[in-house]
Amino acid sequence: MPIITLTTDFGTRDGYVGALKGVIARRAPDATLVDLAHDIPPGDIAHAAWVVSTSAPEFPWGTVHVVVVDPGVGGARRGVIASAAGQWYVGPDNGVFAYVTNRHTQAWAIDIQLLGTGVSRTFHGRDVFAPVAVSLALGEPATRWGPPAPLTGELPWGPRPERQGRVVHVDRFGNLITDLPRAEAGTAVAIAGHTLAVRGTYEDVATGELLAYIGSARTVEIAVRDGRADTRLAVPRGTLVTPVKDAGPYR
Amino acid sequence: MPIITLTTDFGTRDGYVGALKGVIARRAPDATLVDLAHDIPPGDIAHAAWVVSTSAPEFPWGTVHVVVVDPGVGGARRGVIASAAGQWYVGPDNGVFAYVTNRHTQAWAIDIQLLGTGVSRTFHGRDVFAPVAVSLALGEPATRWGPPAPLTGELPWGPRPERQGRVVHVDRFGNLITDLPRAEAGTAVAIAGHTLAVRGTYEDVATGELLAYIGSARTVEIAVRDGRADTRLAVPRGTLVTPVKDAGPYR
Amino acid sequence: MPIITLTTDFGTRDGYVGALKGVIARRAPDATLVDLAHDIPPGDIAHAAWVVSTSAPEFPWGTVHVVVVDPGVGGARRGVIASAAGQWYVGPDNGVFAYVTNRHTQAWAIDIQLLGTGVSRTFHGRDVFAPVAVSLALGEPATRWGPPAPLTGELPWGPRPERQGRVVHVDRFGNLITDLPRAEAGTAVAIAGHTLAVRGTYEDVATGELLAYIGSARTVEIAVRDGRADTRLAVPRGTLVTPVKDAGPYR
Repeated sequence: MPIITLTTDFGTRDGYVGALKGVIARRAPDATLVDLAHDIPPGDIAHAAWVVSTSAPEFPWGTVHVVVVDPGVGGARRGVIASAAGQWYVGPDNGVFAYVTNRHTQAWAIDIQLLGTGVSRTFHGRDVFAPVAVSLALGEPATRWGPPAPLTGELPWGPRPERQGRVVHVDRFGNLITDLPRAEAGTAVAIAGHTLAVRGTYEDVATGELLAYIGSARTVEIAVRDGRADTRLAVPRGTLVTPVKDAGPYR
Repeated sequence: MPIITLTTDFGTRDGYVGALKGVIARRAPDATLVDLAHDIPPGDIAHAAWVVSTSAPEFPWGTVHVVVVDPGVGGARRGVIASAAGQWYVGPDNGVFAYVTNRHTQAWAIDIQLLGTGVSRTFHGRDVFAPVAVSLALGEPATRWGPPAPLTGELPWGPRPERQGRVVHVDRFGNLITDLPRAEAGTAVAIAGHTLAVRGTYEDVATGELLAYIGSARTVEIAVRDGRADTRLAVPRGTLVTPVKDAGPYR
Repeated sequence: MPIITLTTDFGTRDGYVGALKGVIARRAPDATLVDLAHDIPPGDIAHAAWVVSTSAPEFPWGTVHVVVVDPGVGGARRGVIASAAGQWYVGPDNGVFAYVTNRHTQAWAIDIQLLGTGVSRTFHGRDVFAPVAVSLALGEPATRWGPPAPLTGELPWGPRPERQGRVVHVDRFGNLITDLPRAEAGTAVAIAGHTLAVRGTYEDVATGELLAYIGSARTVEIAVRDGRADTRLAVPRGTLVTPVKDAGPYR
């Protein structure tokens, strides 16, 4: 029986996560439930999208990932199933899968009529996405829940500009994660008026100093050793980071 | 082997949740452990009671739910086992089971003498409730731990007044959850001087606007679209919500 | 298949915990994953050490405990495996295992060259400790990953002074946990200018009153009934607590 993972903005103080788990456990007592993250900032689709991209692809083939960060629940946005690189994804079509899918990804729109008459208007996690995830975990075809349909959800920033990156995530430690891949970073980058050599790790600079390095997503990150880059630079997500050539020696 | 769920106010920064899990895993290596919520505000019994009621009943028949929100630990309050609607509940008799039980519910008082001499005065979650939960999960009878005894714990507000409801929970999103059931809500409700039409979902009003709707517990909820109703209305739990007849057209 | 537990300072809003879990699930689909605590304050090694000591030893023999509180990742600090009292520990050699090991504990230094070429400089949890934990859970010998080597990590305070204790942890409830064992506490203790009788439990004093009692770790704790001792006393971790003899009658 495949694993079913859960990523939500429900926090860990209410009953919403428990209700999701109960629905899954009742329908698939042998399913293995794995919490990825439940403290996604409320309604922060871009945050969720990055979290999914850095954790879901690590799981075994066939894992079903339920993502419920869904400020538009009950409105016009569709629920979707997507299949990408051997993983199943179930959630709202609002951009939460932007980093793990592309326009060639197989996806299906969920017809909530097929879930019966008990579907609430405000909790599709429990009433739609959890039952659909169980169905996929049990080996039923995605087409049971609706027709193939391309994903339409998008993040607030468009595609990455050529030869540049953007700050796409700020983590718990205040590190600024960008989408500029290692191969394009070179030896130094510029962000918000700072030019920073690309270092190996935090200990390559003094305490309190700003640095760039290749992070665990294999992209450029900006950090302050034993400090917080988010408060130091005070730049929003979407801020550009640019490789610098001939930046001279760094000391 | 049944599922054992955990709901506590222990948070996720200390070793208390881990100790509960270790005790259960040592005594029942095949038990499936499921976290419901650990960030119940410290000592907030009414908060815990609502969380339990919205998640525990979703689980399969025979699930054992351990609830440790227990400000009176070590004092006069009793530990109890309750059996309601196919679910087992284990925890302090302080009101945390108020919404999933009634005065006809089967319940048993836990005699802590039966747990041996190593029971601490301050951590009955680890030393009493976890071992009792394992015992129930293993199929032992509740009577092993003490005599039948009615539940006595109560919430700060009494039973729901006739034809009215109360705010019983404020969730992470700032939504005010009431216990006024859909069938009694009608087309509009009054709360704290506001009269609100009962809408379908958030998108039925403009951003920033206050609304009432039928929430995932099938009761009336009060929210602000893309905002927080708790800060807008600033009313405490227990506040009355009243159905309004002939409230005129809503625009 | 043994349990693998996770204790980190990654929080529950990023993808780091999920990545750890994915790596483990991919390599050992039958492993049982258990979250101990993920909201360790960032980089707080002493906090992690206490959490590990109060939860990990409760688990069944052979459990593998992964601890990732690792401010020095990528620098000179070593990764280690330790075996103590039937439990396996995997993490940085920075003091996080100080309370569950001693200088006679069997330990092995992890040679990260043996993990292959894909090891990042900033996420040894995912790239080093998770794979090593899986290896141990699968029954492979610790010596596969490196030579025996004594643990060197230490906490900011030295060993406990004779006949005294220290505040070693402040929990979510604001209780001050000390390492002064029950057997040495006697009937009263002094801390920060206060002399406190050792009580049985919170209800032995009035609401708002400061008290000492024997906590769930079988050591002296300082609390305020229905309040917070950390804000009342405002003393740092490491503060001394001293047994008091002939302290006179307490009322």
